[in-house]
Amino acid sequence: DPEFNDNPHRRLNILTGEWVLVSPHRTKRPWQGKTEKSEVEQRPQYDPSCYLCPGNERMGGSVNPDYSTPFSFTNDFSALLQNVEDVKFSDGLLKAESESGICKVVCFSPNHSLTLPLMTVGAIVDVITLWQKEYRELGAMKSINHIQIFENKGDIMGCSNPHPHGQIWAQRTIPQEVQKKDMRFKAYWDKNHRSLLGDYLVQELESRERIFLENEHFVALVPYWAVWPYETLIVPKRKRAHLGELNEDEKQAYAEIIKKLTTRYDNIFETSFPYSAGIHQAPTNGKKHPEWHFHMSFYPPLLRSATVKKFMVGYEMFANPQRDITAEQAADTLKGLSDVHYTLR
Amino acid sequence: DPEFNDNPHRRLNILTGEWVLVSPHRTKRPWQGKTEKSEVEQRPQYDPSCYLCPGNERMGGSVNPDYSTPFSFTNDFSALLQNVEDVKFSDGLLKAESESGICKVVCFSPNHSLTLPLMTVGAIVDVITLWQKEYRELGAMKSINHIQIFENKGDIMGCSNPHPHGQIWAQRTIPQEVQKKDMRFKAYWDKNHRSLLGDYLVQELESRERIFLENEHFVALVPYWAVWPYETLIVPKRKRAHLGELNEDEKQAYAEIIKKLTTRYDNIFETSFPYSAGIHQAPTNGKKHPEWHFHMSFYPPLLRSATVKKFMVGYEMFANPQRDITAEQAADTLKGLSDVHYTLR
Ligand SMILES: O=P(O)(O)O[C@H]1O[C@H](CO)[C@@H](O)[C@H](O)[C@H]1O
Ligand SMILES: O=P(O)(O)O[C@H]1O[C@H](CO)[C@@H](O)[C@H](O)[C@H]1O
Repeated sequence: DPEFNDNPHRRLNILTGEWVLVSPHRTKRPWQGKTEKSEVEQRPQYDPSCYLCPGNERMGGSVNPDYSTPFSFTNDFSALLQNVEDVKFSDGLLKAESESGICKVVCFSPNHSLTLPLMTVGAIVDVITLWQKEYRELGAMKSINHIQIFENKGDIMGCSNPHPHGQIWAQRTIPQEVQKKDMRFKAYWDKNHRSLLGDYLVQELESRERIFLENEHFVALVPYWAVWPYETLIVPKRKRAHLGELNEDEKQAYAEIIKKLTTRYDNIFETSFPYSAGIHQAPTNGKKHPEWHFHMSFYPPLLRSATVKKFMVGYEMFANPQRDITAEQAADTLKGLSDVHYTLR
Repeated sequence: DPEFNDNPHRRLNILTGEWVLVSPHRTKRPWQGKTEKSEVEQRPQYDPSCYLCPGNERMGGSVNPDYSTPFSFTNDFSALLQNVEDVKFSDGLLKAESESGICKVVCFSPNHSLTLPLMTVGAIVDVITLWQKEYRELGAMKSINHIQIFENKGDIMGCSNPHPHGQIWAQRTIPQEVQKKDMRFKAYWDKNHRSLLGDYLVQELESRERIFLENEHFVALVPYWAVWPYETLIVPKRKRAHLGELNEDEKQAYAEIIKKLTTRYDNIFETSFPYSAGIHQAPTNGKKHPEWHFHMSFYPPLLRSATVKKFMVGYEMFANPQRDITAEQAADTLKGLSDVHYTLR
C-alpha cells in the first residue's frame, strides 16, 4: 500500500506474532545524540595476546591447538553449566527452576584479521560444517533440547574479542524467542501441511520487493516485519528443519550468500558492520519437526552512518519495537550495493 | 532456595509470563570488551544552544515559553502522527495497519543542569502532576487507547539532549508489552478478585529480601524476575490503576521514592546513572480496569562500573534475556547506599 511509505503503521511478524511500529517520516529527525567511534583498525593475522588465536593460552589455562580450520571449545566462562541438579522452586508468586546446558565458542578462522565477508567461500563452508557437527552432537544429548548458534560482531554488539568467532548456547529448555516461532510454525503446518516460512518465501519471490540476494538454494531478504534498520533473513528455498539436513551443494550456496550479505553490510557505510546474527532451527527434543524451516537472522544496530545507531530504549522496551526506515527502503539500499568488499576495490 | 545463588536457573516474570536466565557464577568473567566513557560533565543552568531550555527556539521553529514548572509540548519529530487515515492492509502473509497517535516531550525542569535525583521533592511532585494531566487529557481522546510515559536518561540510552526531560507516546493500539501485562492482570483478577501486583507486594513486604526503599504509600524493589543488572520497580501499596488516581499525599510519597531511588542509582558507581524508565498503567480504551495496578520500572544498562554495561545481544535477542548477578545481590547493593547524592557530600 503506497499510503504506508510516508505514514506511521504497524506490521505483523508472522513468525512470532508480534508487531513492529514503522515511522517512515521520522528519518528527517536530526541527530544530536551519542555517536560511536568508527574504527578502521588494522589487525595482525596473529595476535600473541588474543586468547582465541592458535597456540595461545586461554584465561581458563587451556592452550588452543594450532588449528587451521574452524575450532570450537567449551566457553571458559559459560553462562550455562552441565550437571546442574534439577530443582524446581515455587513460593507463592515466585517461580524458578534450575537450568543446565553447554556454552561453546566457535573460532571461524585461525586468522585474527578476518571477518566472514573477508573469508573465502570454502572457509565459510568449513564454519557451516562445524555448526552442523555441533548441532548433531549437542542435539544427540538427552539433556539438550535447544541449540542457539549466534555471532556478536563488533564491540558495540558486546563482542569482547575481534578474533572472528561465534558462540553456541545449548540448553535443556526451549528459549522464549524460539517457542514463539515453534508455536506458529506448528499451527500453520497443522492447518496447511506446508511451511509457514516457505509460503512467505514464495510470496517474496513473486514480488521481489525485499529480496536482495538469491542463488539456487538460498534467498536473502529484508523481512516485511524487520525491526532493526538493516535487519535481514537468510532462508533455504527448500524446507530444511536444521543445518544437519544441508547437503554439500546447499552448504556451498549458504556460504556464498553469507559472504555476499556480510560484504554488502560492510559496503553500506564502508565500515566493519556490527550485528548479532542467530540461527533458529528445530529444537532437539526428540520430536519430529516437519513444521520447522530453519533460517538465519542478522540484527545490525547501525541506522544513519558508521557512527549513529538505532537505540532500542524507552518506548521500544516498554511498549513496542519501532523503526524509522521501511523494510523496502533498506532492501533498496542493499540491492544497490556491490559484492566486492570496499577494502578490496 | 540457596542452590540458586551459585547455579544457573530461570525465573518467571509473573507480569509478562516470560522467563529470564540467571547465571550468578558468571560475574567472575573478565571483561575486555567495549567500555563507555564516564562523563563527569558539568552543565550550566541555562544553555543557549539547548532546544529544551526556556525561551529558546526549537528545531521546528517554535519558541519555548519562559517556563518555570514542568513544560510539555508535541514532539517536533513525532514517531506517531494524528489524523492518519485508518487503513488495514493484508496480502497473503503480509499484514499491516495504519497507526495514529501523539508524541510529547516533557521538560522536567527549566534548569538545564539538573536530573531527577538533584531536583527537590516538590519539583518532582510537579512533574507527576503534569504526567497526571497528560494521562487524563490524552486518555480522554477517543483515538487514544494507550499512553506510554517514559524517560531515556544518558546518551548510552539514546537520549539526544541532557536537559532533564522525558517523553509520552500516546496511541490508538495497545502496545505489545502492555498487552502481556493486561492479560495477566485480568486473568488473576478474574480468578482471585485481587491485584496480581498487590499480592506480589504482600509477599515481598514479608520477606524484605528485595525491597530497598519504602514509605507510607510506595515501595521500591528489585523484582524477583529482573532482567537488567540493577532493574527496579516502584509500586503503590494500594492498587491504583493509573496516575490519575493519586491524591496529594500519594504524589508526595511517589516523588520522595523517585528522588531516593535515582539518588542511590547515581551513588552505585558515582556517576549520573543511565536508564530507561517507564510507567505502565491502565489502557484508556474506555473500559474499567479494576485489575490494573500501575507501576514504574527502571531498566539501567550498567553492570560492573560506570563504564562497563550489560549487552543484550546474540543469545538475549535470539533466545532469552540473561543476567549475571541475582536480583538479591542487586537489592543488597541498593540497600547499602546513602540517600545523599555523592556530588553533595
Ligand atoms: O525521541 P528521541 O529521544 O530522539 O529518541 C530516543 O527515544 C526513542 C523512543 O524510545 C527511540 O525510538 C530512539 O531510538 C531514541 O534515540
Ligand atoms: O559471551 P561474551 O561474548 O563474553 O558476551 C557477550 O555475549 C553474550 C551472549 O549474547 C551476552 O550475554 C553478553 O552480555 C555479551 O557481552
